[in-house]
Amino acid sequence: MQNHDHRVIIQKLLDCALACEHCATACLHEEDVKMMANCISLDRDCADICVQGARLLQRDSVIAHQYLVLCEEICRLCAAECGKHQHDHCQECAKACIDCAEACHAHHEPITQD
Amino acid sequence: MQNHDHRVIIQKLLDCALACEHCATACLHEEDVKMMANCISLDRDCADICVQGARLLQRDSVIAHQYLVLCEEICRLCAAECGKHQHDHCQECAKACIDCAEACHAHHEPITQD
Amino acid sequence: MQNHDHRVIIQKLLDCALACEHCATACLHEEDVKMMANCISLDRDCADICVQGARLLQRDSVIAHQYLVLCEEICRLCAAECGKHQHDHCQECAKACIDCAEACHAHHEPITQD
Amino acid sequence: MQNHDHRVIIQKLLDCALACEHCATACLHEEDVKMMANCISLDRDCADICVQGARLLQRDSVIAHQYLVLCEEICRLCAAECGKHQHDHCQECAKACIDCAEACHAHHEPITQD
Repeated sequence: MQNHDHRVIIQKLLDCALACEHCATACLHEEDVKMMANCISLDRDCADICVQGARLLQRDSVIAHQYLVLCEEICRLCAAECGKHQHDHCQECAKACIDCAEACHAHHEPITQD
Repeated sequence: MQNHDHRVIIQKLLDCALACEHCATACLHEEDVKMMANCISLDRDCADICVQGARLLQRDSVIAHQYLVLCEEICRLCAAECGKHQHDHCQECAKACIDCAEACHAHHEPITQD
Repeated sequence: MQNHDHRVIIQKLLDCALACEHCATACLHEEDVKMMANCISLDRDCADICVQGARLLQRDSVIAHQYLVLCEEICRLCAAECGKHQHDHCQECAKACIDCAEACHAHHEPITQD
Repeated sequence: MQNHDHRVIIQKLLDCALACEHCATACLHEEDVKMMANCISLDRDCADICVQGARLLQRDSVIAHQYLVLCEEICRLCAAECGKHQHDHCQECAKACIDCAEACHAHHEPITQD
């Protein structure tokens, strides 16, 4: 039961969030956790922000399309970090983040800042 | 990139949450909003709790299977209320809640209470 | 146990979120719920976004200060709507949103958009 | 602008969540991150669950008092792990978790399970 206009991007936001949750947990089980600390931090933020983005779109929030600017930004940061590591969970997470960032970029609205 | 052991139930939890988000928004646009007030309240709780359940499962949390007891409970409450209304969004939400409640019931662990 | 550098703004974000939760519930119990539909929608978004903002600041997220741009925006939208209604819960919510928006404005960082 | 009946426990839930957010971040900066992996995992779950508990209470959710059973459980698990470590952030987090668990215990309602 998804919002028909936004079904594809909502799924990408949720896939990205799930990839981040999985990556964070897997990083915490790696031999060298210290090397993964920044990855874990970004996974945590990216999961939170992308889940919220999906919910705002699904509920047709007035702020949803501005929110996607933030989703894109955290996805790009998380993809850049995950992409440095050769673990499967990091590579898969980086890919999900890039897919999501591109979808967000295509849908977002500029934010008024002053 | 989903947790392979829990892919089906995670999807049901997310589908339920999305149905609740959509139902709450649609209820707020109905002619008789007052009649939908309880439905909106339960949708709000059910969306929040089911999204969190999906994330806990995806991250292999030690508390995930206990958490599903709560997911089942709120899904049953939300389904009972949505099922009273003939709007498509309510009927679809009731169905998603029941599917999710059954999946949660099959996977949950008892909670120790005192 | 709050982040010492950001204690004041974190508290304002949480106070705003709590005011929005309370206002949404109280609106759902008003005689004329239909008139409050937009207020309920904005309360829902504002609560979600401000809680997330508080958590990102508390965890020293790299994206926290950009996120505050969105917090400010949703707070201003919610304050404008709540401010139209004379119910105590709306007036109190409008005040909490304005306080929070001002704190966010003082702390946020510009978001890079393209 | 808090729910007057539940002001104290809502504050304890939020204090606990903030302590967990801070502890997780500080753990990720420790020299021996590997030793802190379980602490980080529990902090993540405890922050999510306690924030949600505070919101459910504040909105007078029908499921709020059942939800506190889960809040108590995750707080006790998190306190037990944090309490093993001598870092200030762990000791402070353990204390916030115990305070919160006790408040939840005093307020919760039994969950019907079958």
